Order: sequence, then C-alpha cells, then structure tokens
Amino acid sequence: MCELLAMSANTPTDLCFSFTGLTRRGGETGPHKDGWGVTFYEGKGVRSFHDPDPSASSRIAEVVQTHPIKSEVAICHIRQANVGDICLANTHPFIRELWGQYWVFAHNGQLSDFQAEPGFYEPVGTTDSEALFCDMLNHLRQHCHRGDPAETLVEHLVELANNYARQGVFNLLLSNGERLFTYCTTKMASITRRAPFGPARLKDTDVTVDFESETTPDDIVSVIVTEPLTTDEKWDIYQPGEWRLWRKGEVVLSGGR
Amino acid sequence: MCELLAMSANTPTDLCFSFTGLTRRGGETGPHKDGWGVTFYEGKGVRSFHDPDPSASSRIAEVVQTHPIKSEVAICHIRQANVGDICLANTHPFIRELWGQYWVFAHNGQLSDFQAEPGFYEPVGTTDSEALFCDMLNHLRQHCHRGDPAETLVEHLVELANNYARQGVFNLLLSNGERLFTYCTTKMASITRRAPFGPARLKDTDVTVDFESETTPDDIVSVIVTEPLTTDEKWDIYQPGEWRLWRKGEVVLSGGR
Repeated sequence: MCELLAMSANTPTDLCFSFTGLTRRGGETGPHKDGWGVTFYEGKGVRSFHDPDPSASSRIAEVVQTHPIKSEVAICHIRQANVGDICLANTHPFIRELWGQYWVFAHNGQLSDFQAEPGFYEPVGTTDSEALFCDMLNHLRQHCHRGDPAETLVEHLVELANNYARQGVFNLLLSNGERLFTYCTTKMASITRRAPFGPARLKDTDVTVDFESETTPDDIVSVIVTEPLTTDEKWDIYQPGEWRLWRKGEVVLSGGR
Repeated sequence: MCELLAMSANTPTDLCFSFTGLTRRGGETGPHKDGWGVTFYEGKGVRSFHDPDPSASSRIAEVVQTHPIKSEVAICHIRQANVGDICLANTHPFIRELWGQYWVFAHNGQLSDFQAEPGFYEPVGTTDSEALFCDMLNHLRQHCHRGDPAETLVEHLVELANNYARQGVFNLLLSNGERLFTYCTTKMASITRRAPFGPARLKDTDVTVDFESETTPDDIVSVIVTEPLTTDEKWDIYQPGEWRLWRKGEVVLSGGR
C-alpha cells in the first residue's frame, strides 16, 4: 500500500510542512520506501519530482522539503510496492494531458485483477494504478466534453470510482489543476486551515509550524491525506465510499454511497 | 531563442558536467534566463525538472548539477522567451505519452505563425514549440503504427521537420526513450566520447572533468547541443537541414536536405 497527500488552497501555498511529515514515512516512520513523487500546479503548468529511492533519505525530497514551491493544487504519493516493480515508470503521480490541461493522478490501494479496456491513453509502467488512471481518462474523453460543468464530470468520476471500489481498494487523488477530486474506500482524512491560524505539530518528526506567521487572514488551505499528519489538530475522517471535490481550499461538491 | 542539450549513451551516464556548462548560459554567460527544464529517461520512466526561474541561480538546477542522475537519454532546454509568457506551462521539455512510451520534446527557434491542425494532443501552454510537438505526435498517431521500424518513423519526422523548417527556425530534440531524433536548421553540434577518454574544459565556467576516471572502456556517450560546451574538444557541426538519429551514443541513421 501507499500513502497519499494533496493540497487545495485559495492562494499559492507551499507544501513544505506536510511534505516533511509524509516523507518521513518513506523508510523512517513508515514502510513506504519504494519511491515517491509530487506534482505542483503553477497556473496551467506542472512541476513534478519523481524518485524511485526512499523519500526519507532522498536528496531531492530534502530540496522539496526546504525550497518553498507555491501552488494552489499539489498531489504527492509515497509508495510501498505491491503491483509493479520498483522503478521510475511505476512512481506516482501519473500525468496525462486531456483537453489542453494536465491531469494528475495518485492512488492508494490495489485492484490486482484490473484489466483496462484498450483506449487512447496507455500505461507506460506496470502498475494497476496507472492502468486505472488511463481507464478513467479514456472514459472522460469518450463520454464527456471540454467545458462540461463540474457536476457532470464528477458524476462520471464517482460512477467509475464506485465500480473500481467494488474490485479492490481505491483511495484516489485526481486533479486537472482547477479542481481536486478525492475518493475514499478505506482511509482518507482532511483538514481545512483558515483564520484564526494556530500552531501544528507533525506526528512523524519533531517539527512544529505556526501557520499564523506564514499566512494572511484570507487564506484557506486544505490538506487531504490517507493518515493524519499532525497530532494537535482535528482531522475530518472520510467514510468508506465518500468523495469530495475541492476547489480553492473548500469542498464544493461531496457525496457518498 | 533558446539553447538545447541532449545526451545519448550506451550505459546510464550522468549529465552533471554538460548541464553545469549549459545552465551558466541561463542568466550568467548567456541571456537564456526565462526558465529551464531537463528530462531524464530511466528505463521507460522519466524524471523531469522544470523551473521558470533562471537556471544560473536556480536552487533546483544546483541539485541537478551536483546530484548524478544516470540516464541513457536526456533532453535539456534553457529558454529565452519569444512566443509565450514566462511561466511553467511554457517551459520545455514537453512530454506526452504515445503507444505506451513517454515522448519528450525540446525546440529552439520560432515559427510564430504556426497553426496546428486540431488533433488529439493539445498544447497546455501558449508556445509555438508545444503546438509543434502536439502536431508531430498527432501526425505520428494518425500515419504510423506501434512497432513501425525506426526508418519509417524517421521518414515521417524528417518530412514534418522539413516542412516546419520552411516556416521558420526549427532546431529539434525528440526522443521516445529508445532513440533520439535531432534536426538542425541553424545551429547544432555533437560530440561522441569513447575510449581513450580524456579531459575536457567547459567554455562557460571554470570546470574541468577527466572522463577517463568516470567511465569504463566500453562507454560511448554523445552530447548534442546548439552551441559547443567545451573549448578543448572537436565538435561535429550539423549542416542546415541535417538530421541524425541517435541510439546508445551512436548515429544510426542520418541525412539532410
């Protein structure tokens, strides 16, 4: 299994604090040592870092922890391999272009018997996750249209996700840079930080941050993870089958089975 | 205009020396300060670094200079913007998946009136370069097939490139991870290093390397650039209209107008 982290914010915000907590679990406080990756949207562009080495000891992860990259949407994944070798091609997040937007995907879980229908998008690596991502995009390209309202896209995504969830564990992060779709079958939690901001302490390493000193009163920043990252904040736990669509730090649509 | 750098090698090799020379030109010894990017193939996977900041002062570029990432094919670009704003979405190399392979593209030049036919692949940013890349992949997808021999693919690529070259400046690097296609309209040069290896000195900064100590006798490593990077080696200058297909450090097909 793996761990997931995403951010949705109404102003470009760095992920240093949360990323520092998560990456400890990649070979130090957790067993997810089979690679890691993170993608930051900046406008319509993305910048990604992928590494098949353990995040807890990665020189590149250290740079991402300490070099503030400001983003309104970011998606991060640390891997404990089950399906697919440990190699760069199997390292999440996966990225494809659809309708002139980069779509970014990370998955926790396993659908080991999943067989994708042939389609335009094809996996490069050998994970079930990348095959699922290609299947989702092939479905969207076939059944939806550029400029469809969020409600329409989400209806299709929820139907796909419910179907995958019947075949295995499918905790999902998916974004096109404007919105972030999250779906839980077994574990996901979120926190929304807004004024008045307070301090927070990471669970996985001795780091505390005072968000008050790093924010303005209008900032709204949400973090979505498979396991809560801090010990002194109240995280909102997803129910199995629950999904939430995030935009600019807030839930704009949600539902469940 | 911009500058390009690529590597083709028969064994995973790092790009630190050449990358250090090139990135000096991004705001220090050259005016190409409007972002930079590099993509390394590792097997079928890729890892990319993209930054809209000047490469000469980029913290992330510093990591890539000093952290050896071993690859058989790498493509790098430093940008001096002409068409398209300075932003991440306009930062080369551009990447798309075709036939289950990542295709990576970087371009030097300008075809400011270029209008791509609508197709499956669409640009995310606003550069003529990304529109050209999408046009090439749309053509390949429509007219070629998975598993076509290199000769067939190259025939199509050369025809496309000759056509673009009639409309402006089109110096090109394009790879699918197996092969590297290079095309010159105005400036490109290559060097192939093999045993007996010797020392080399960068033109843009006071760095010397002794390749003898970093290689084995079987290594073949070629570097392709828009402007030679070293002062004490003999670079092989491309003619206008000349193209070369590289594989494992050697030219396997070539031609010209």
